Amino acid sequence: MATSAWLWQEAQPIFARILDHPFVRGLGDGSLPREKFRFYLCQDYVYLIAYCRVFALAAAKADDLETMRMFSTLLEETLHTEMDIHRQYAARFGMAPEELERTEPAPVTVSYTSFLLKTAYAGTIADILAAVLSCQWSYHEIALRLKAAGNSPADSPYNAWIDAYASDEFGRLVRWLRDKLDALTAHASEAEKARLRDLFVTGFRFEYLFWEMAWQEARWPL
Amino acid sequence: MATSAWLWQEAQPIFARILDHPFVRGLGDGSLPREKFRFYLCQDYVYLIAYCRVFALAAAKADDLETMRMFSTLLEETLHTEMDIHRQYAARFGMAPEELERTEPAPVTVSYTSFLLKTAYAGTIADILAAVLSCQWSYHEIALRLKAAGNSPADSPYNAWIDAYASDEFGRLVRWLRDKLDALTAHASEAEKARLRDLFVTGFRFEYLFWEMAWQEARWPL
Amino acid sequence: MATSAWLWQEAQPIFARILDHPFVRGLGDGSLPREKFRFYLCQDYVYLIAYCRVFALAAAKADDLETMRMFSTLLEETLHTEMDIHRQYAARFGMAPEELERTEPAPVTVSYTSFLLKTAYAGTIADILAAVLSCQWSYHEIALRLKAAGNSPADSPYNAWIDAYASDEFGRLVRWLRDKLDALTAHASEAEKARLRDLFVTGFRFEYLFWEMAWQEARWPL
Amino acid sequence: MATSAWLWQEAQPIFARILDHPFVRGLGDGSLPREKFRFYLCQDYVYLIAYCRVFALAAAKADDLETMRMFSTLLEETLHTEMDIHRQYAARFGMAPEELERTEPAPVTVSYTSFLLKTAYAGTIADILAAVLSCQWSYHEIALRLKAAGNSPADSPYNAWIDAYASDEFGRLVRWLRDKLDALTAHASEAEKARLRDLFVTGFRFEYLFWEMAWQEARWPL
Repeated sequence: MATSAWLWQEAQPIFARILDHPFVRGLGDGSLPREKFRFYLCQDYVYLIAYCRVFALAAAKADDLETMRMFSTLLEETLHTEMDIHRQYAARFGMAPEELERTEPAPVTVSYTSFLLKTAYAGTIADILAAVLSCQWSYHEIALRLKAAGNSPADSPYNAWIDAYASDEFGRLVRWLRDKLDALTAHASEAEKARLRDLFVTGFRFEYLFWEMAWQEARWPL
Repeated sequence: MATSAWLWQEAQPIFARILDHPFVRGLGDGSLPREKFRFYLCQDYVYLIAYCRVFALAAAKADDLETMRMFSTLLEETLHTEMDIHRQYAARFGMAPEELERTEPAPVTVSYTSFLLKTAYAGTIADILAAVLSCQWSYHEIALRLKAAGNSPADSPYNAWIDAYASDEFGRLVRWLRDKLDALTAHASEAEKARLRDLFVTGFRFEYLFWEMAWQEARWPL
Repeated sequence: MATSAWLWQEAQPIFARILDHPFVRGLGDGSLPREKFRFYLCQDYVYLIAYCRVFALAAAKADDLETMRMFSTLLEETLHTEMDIHRQYAARFGMAPEELERTEPAPVTVSYTSFLLKTAYAGTIADILAAVLSCQWSYHEIALRLKAAGNSPADSPYNAWIDAYASDEFGRLVRWLRDKLDALTAHASEAEKARLRDLFVTGFRFEYLFWEMAWQEARWPL
Repeated sequence: MATSAWLWQEAQPIFARILDHPFVRGLGDGSLPREKFRFYLCQDYVYLIAYCRVFALAAAKADDLETMRMFSTLLEETLHTEMDIHRQYAARFGMAPEELERTEPAPVTVSYTSFLLKTAYAGTIADILAAVLSCQWSYHEIALRLKAAGNSPADSPYNAWIDAYASDEFGRLVRWLRDKLDALTAHASEAEKARLRDLFVTGFRFEYLFWEMAWQEARWPL
């Protein structure tokens, strides 16, 4: 079985809990309190900056030009397109772009981004892919399910979020990341597989904690 | 004021909360449930392995031979002396060394060690010192206070912990780290100071969360 | 004096030797044997790939979004625009793009790119800027002088090279890198200044060796 | 065939040239001009400092405690024992320890150490082993051959050099590095093997250039 396929299976219990999380359900039926989404948006903005650094490190470590180009494009698109979407959303929710920039990272945001950055500095391209995939892939699968469920009112402010991550374009990106990981790890040793599993599952666990943090609006206790 | 002195002031509200934490008070009067200490010991063992990696990265980045030697010695002593203390403690609490090695890192352990490692890979020697100091320094100050309070029964299993971290030898180590940081940052710009403050305070916050994790024996929720 | 200004002064003896080098003079009057330029083009292509990795590492380490965006743009433009220019040049000199890709790095190319990459992994943004500036800046100044000298026949195949690096656009890039370095090092300590000088001068020395390597078509002796 | 065994075969043409190099022959029959050895000693001292950084990075990246301990020990022994041997040698050749410290790195020293450091930052433990092995292994094999040849006068100042690197202790170190590399790469893909070969052969080529640099006492041309 391709690496990404069995990694996905390993993470199913966590994914089930994410799908059932009130934040995610609230995105799907439009009932999510806007205040919580605003908190999420700010933390996700901080997260995206770290995500860009991770793509940059992957571009630096890539073995061939085609892979460098792909990560460089991911970096550019995240820095521009995806962060612009956040800024537009922020405007719609009455926040100035400066508010996004001034966000104080919450504990889970610091933890999750540190985990990704540490992996990107210390690891291989395969390690980096295993660690970042949980975010991209789970977002796409969540958005596809919310869209298919059709519970979202036409005027829900979260439809743009769902559409962006359910899009074919975003799906192709996930596919590329999966294919790259699968190609790089076709002959992975047992030790390597255990490490990839650990990275993927840890990423997924942080995804769950991130939704929970947003729901609780959990800041540093002191 | 020397960098380390004002950093310490910045962290006082958090340090006060740490001193008052039931885990720390329980270490001091011997009332800490052994099960909680056992949990702490295992997670701290995982933490120390990451700490060794951070010292190794500092040795790799050091500007001069004397600094390389100091970090190399810290690495050796943590790998041998300090981890041996953990193994001896473990034996005393009925745990085999393999149990320490098999520990599954709890969320706060993953988060805190990722933060330290990310800093060590991305940052300067001054950044690394600011991030690691919160652990060493707070341990020394906690142990000094617990010792001075004199609430610990003669047969408390935690006296060895207190003695180790209150020792002059450990104090000299903290002093060396502080002096090094102060020397490196005597002319730090405002931007650098803000970064050092952020690293030191984040380290301190993770110290608090680590005690809290040990008290709650908090594992991954899924 | 701004950092970049005194660094430039420090490198003047080397720059004088570069301007006087037969490869550079041959670029300026069109007399450079095409075979030597072809060798240069292949090695420079390998060099640019490493240069991209260095920009990626700088993007990963940048302190703020504006700097990340700048390095990300540099990465994209080097990966696409500048490497395309090499591919067009190659075509004009009768080389397939695959020939560029298959180039075996010569000793000086391995040495220079290793120096840049080691600096990018181990150092700060200021370190990286000091190390990369020698290439960009010297190319711009060489091209400006060759253009001003006006010795190049209208049909010289090297006019496109001169025009590209003498362009205002390229000049703005050099200016941005200088301004960034100057801003980051306005309060540099003596130790930091010594390190920046060492990085800049070493970069410049490798620039000289690179021209010499291209002139000699110097490959591994074994 | 184990990785290290075929890597060794790949490097045989270079190793033959090293054995035949006048510097190495001069070490063996005691005829090497002392001035050239003094130059070598200074550059090798600079090289060892970088070698220590490489071992530190390997300790930071090691997958398990046993490997961390080994690299940490290598770091300590190089920092203390091996550099002490250099200081003793220096004293015997009339140089103060400060002279070693003040050495200006020659071009080949900067190049070779940059190559090792870049590999250590960007690569895996296997990559690092492939890059550092060429030095340790070739030194051991050179020393064994010089010893077996028995051409060295009893009063040759180079007998201590030969004895140190021909020793069983040094041989065990080489064996450990080889075994580690072989274990880590037992199932290496073709792409990985090509990368390991490239690293090992490049290291070997730099070994040759290092002897040549010492023979020529080659400093920066400007």
